[in-house]
Amino acid sequence: MSQGPGKAKRGIPSKEENFNEWYPFIVEAAELVDKRYPIKGMDVWRPYGWKTMKLIDALTHREMERTDHEEVNFPLLIPENLLDRENALVARLKRAREEGVDPDDLRDEEEEGGFKKEVYWVKHAGENELDIPMFLRPTSETAMYTMFPLWIRSHKDLPLKVYQMVNTFRYETKQTRSFIRVREIHFFEAHTAHADEADATRQIEQDLEIVDTIMHDLCLPVIKAKRPLWDTFPGAWYTIGIDAVMPNGRTLQVASCHHYQDQWAKAFDLTYENLDAQQQHCHQTTYGMSERLLGAVVGMHGDENGLIMPPAVAPFQVVVCPMIKKNSEVDTVAAAEELAAKLRRHGLRVKVDSRDIRAGQKYYDWEIKGVPLRLDLGPRDLAQGTAYAARRTGGKEPIPLDGIEEACLSILEEISEELRRRSHAHMNDVVQPLPPINLNDDTYVLEGEVKDGHIYELPFDGTDAHAETIERLTGFAFLGDSTDEYESERPCHMSGTPTRRRVLLAKTY
Amino acid sequence: MSQGPGKAKRGIPSKEENFNEWYPFIVEAAELVDKRYPIKGMDVWRPYGWKTMKLIDALTHREMERTDHEEVNFPLLIPENLLDRENALVARLKRAREEGVDPDDLRDEEEEGGFKKEVYWVKHAGENELDIPMFLRPTSETAMYTMFPLWIRSHKDLPLKVYQMVNTFRYETKQTRSFIRVREIHFFEAHTAHADEADATRQIEQDLEIVDTIMHDLCLPVIKAKRPLWDTFPGAWYTIGIDAVMPNGRTLQVASCHHYQDQWAKAFDLTYENLDAQQQHCHQTTYGMSERLLGAVVGMHGDENGLIMPPAVAPFQVVVCPMIKKNSEVDTVAAAEELAAKLRRHGLRVKVDSRDIRAGQKYYDWEIKGVPLRLDLGPRDLAQGTAYAARRTGGKEPIPLDGIEEACLSILEEISEELRRRSHAHMNDVVQPLPPINLNDDTYVLEGEVKDGHIYELPFDGTDAHAETIERLTGFAFLGDSTDEYESERPCHMSGTPTRRRVLLAKTY
Repeated sequence: MSQGPGKAKRGIPSKEENFNEWYPFIVEAAELVDKRYPIKGMDVWRPYGWKTMKLIDALTHREMERTDHEEVNFPLLIPENLLDRENALVARLKRAREEGVDPDDLRDEEEEGGFKKEVYWVKHAGENELDIPMFLRPTSETAMYTMFPLWIRSHKDLPLKVYQMVNTFRYETKQTRSFIRVREIHFFEAHTAHADEADATRQIEQDLEIVDTIMHDLCLPVIKAKRPLWDTFPGAWYTIGIDAVMPNGRTLQVASCHHYQDQWAKAFDLTYENLDAQQQHCHQTTYGMSERLLGAVVGMHGDENGLIMPPAVAPFQVVVCPMIKKNSEVDTVAAAEELAAKLRRHGLRVKVDSRDIRAGQKYYDWEIKGVPLRLDLGPRDLAQGTAYAARRTGGKEPIPLDGIEEACLSILEEISEELRRRSHAHMNDVVQPLPPINLNDDTYVLEGEVKDGHIYELPFDGTDAHAETIERLTGFAFLGDSTDEYESERPCHMSGTPTRRRVLLAKTY
Repeated sequence: MSQGPGKAKRGIPSKEENFNEWYPFIVEAAELVDKRYPIKGMDVWRPYGWKTMKLIDALTHREMERTDHEEVNFPLLIPENLLDRENALVARLKRAREEGVDPDDLRDEEEEGGFKKEVYWVKHAGENELDIPMFLRPTSETAMYTMFPLWIRSHKDLPLKVYQMVNTFRYETKQTRSFIRVREIHFFEAHTAHADEADATRQIEQDLEIVDTIMHDLCLPVIKAKRPLWDTFPGAWYTIGIDAVMPNGRTLQVASCHHYQDQWAKAFDLTYENLDAQQQHCHQTTYGMSERLLGAVVGMHGDENGLIMPPAVAPFQVVVCPMIKKNSEVDTVAAAEELAAKLRRHGLRVKVDSRDIRAGQKYYDWEIKGVPLRLDLGPRDLAQGTAYAARRTGGKEPIPLDGIEEACLSILEEISEELRRRSHAHMNDVVQPLPPINLNDDTYVLEGEVKDGHIYELPFDGTDAHAETIERLTGFAFLGDSTDEYESERPCHMSGTPTRRRVLLAKTY
């Protein structure tokens, strides 16, 4: 692309050469957030960023409604004593795993759980010290499962499927990054209770289908991997992590689903009367996503000139720029407003930029904000009955004003397809087979090189010790078993046992 | 109304006889909230309550968009040291008022402000004590005005009009009541900055017009009163409180607007460069509303059988109840679904209740939830090509299925009108002229009786001492000067001076 006067990058760091500088620069330059609020890891959402996030949330609301989840809203504060049940449960499950016994055979023990080290505490109100300390929710299992037993009596009350979109809090000690690692998190969490394990399993399948639908709208490919046991959410039977891949090859967990079986139900006395009038424990699941979805959108789709917003969540899908010429007899601003009104009637989100500034400055502003389609309207265009369309993904062409609404809808769909093509190509480039590991004189040796910027895949059916060896030799972490298995059996990378399990290794955010 | 078998009130307290028992009963019985969460004053929003609140929020979003406010989202936590500026400002303004001097002539002093006694404190995170304590926002002036100077440089950046919908917190020590007095508050706050006082004043006028529009949708009359100085928000030049009137005659402040002039701008160094290239302080306003709007809707419109939802915010505007008769050849459920689909295409929110239970139980359930319009569909109705329409405000009639969507829209409008008629009639009944106050032997005497359940109005242009006398004699509190003044001058209730000021006295929530 030519570097016209408006195209000066004005200090935007190169995304290709230095993604780690580009990302924090662009989230502020595009006015998604302001990081100057005086608490580290707590950004101010500016109007453009918040609009984008709410459009992402709208996709989630749509899916929740389609799948009969109901929206609730729980208090932010959780009394410390409610956490005791959770901590006891987590400690017991951990011990059962370590000792290889059935967790039901172990008794709860007092133990300081991990969550207590990651939460913000409220121990004072006004001038008083509170009798029972409270903490800001890091997630709402404890709060919700305290109420579920009051709502569930019989099989008629099942499945119970609720969700909420709320602010959650983590006392992060690692380096914070907008959307990716923050201390106040804009969070979505769905919690369900079912009559049995099979119905809960079907819920997890539905969750993964919802993930696919939303990721299609965001034009992002993801990896869905059943996390290894040591990376499973405490209290879960299994966890499926959903990872986007960033330009630097690092994976970013943007969503996760947990199958709890009936462990939490046992800890929280959550039972129902089944058809045989017997009390039975529920089986539960959760499904969470967060503002990291926006982090992945920013990271994956942006380019050297700024953001590129996927049309499904672009606050403005089209920006109309009238060319303002002094002493011209043609009122391009009025024509632009009329065009915008027409497009809005067809459901498009449209902005008219009628500022009296250089065209180059306008182009720069909307490029950095990633508006997918720009329509320039000058006196000459109007005389020809056309608008000049510039796609944020590249390419310019005049399009007839007559029928322009249909043309815009198809161009936006083509832009979405182009973003999908690019992000899938990146994923394909990134994922590579892991070089062989051989045993030389009782020592495992990696017969090749692994490089940052890649994800490695391998057929794996080995032991935890094998996994540990792989992590040590590569410096990469197990994402887990991809839900997308090999089509036919292959020999395990370590043991040689034939397996269809496709395991992924990555550097993670 | 007859008491059919389904009409049994099943323990609903009488609203007319005992509003104070009816209200807390009904908010749970209608499944708006669950109060069994283990923190007093922090309720769980259940799906039906949250849907209603979000529909009320949607009215606010609509008005904010219409008036060019942009939505932002600020962090929940505010570092204590930011509050110091606010406290100093408030203390200085208070002192200036007491001493009758210009606040600009006074210097800031260290003083413990009122807010510190009403907030929840976060002084610990994980296992650490924080260097700087933080508190949960009770409102966001301090957080926002820390950032505004970074966003406002010149007159071109003005007016700045932003708003947010967030959870706020007050450490309430008084008795809590769902929606009315809670410790975690679902809150709306708009904050604006203007070039001068006149533009800020125009903003207050716009806010009051928005209030009118929203209250029309909620079918609630309100009193808008400029609060007396002693009841003005700290740091404000003046405060206009917007009060709904509850069935027991108590007023409930559901919204407020504050004109700050440039006091906050001075405390937070918020300046802009004007057209003459001079630095000038901004003038600011805020406008707040909360979940109390829902409290007023519940309190004012409900009746002996439960809630009555104003159609504009009813989660279900129409419930269709097919009569399920065994062995009937007519599929009333399919007909009900078809009818619902038709109504939904016309933008109506419709629920089909096809549960196989007694019709009376269904009626009871939807009456308690306040669905404005119920359509019964039995084989006989279908044969006649009609549905049987029952209005929650009273009245039943068959309406032809042909053109039923238009009929439903006009019935809903009539229901809204009926709710407005009822609530305005209540307001008119409640507001009474204050009996005369005469001076007998240097002692003021109230020449008549004042009663709970009333609001008293009087022409007033007296001193603070007069006001204090009135409050002492009546036991009622000054709401302030109604924005709706007397059309012509009347003698002040105390001093006799002719005035158009119409002052209101009330018992308040």
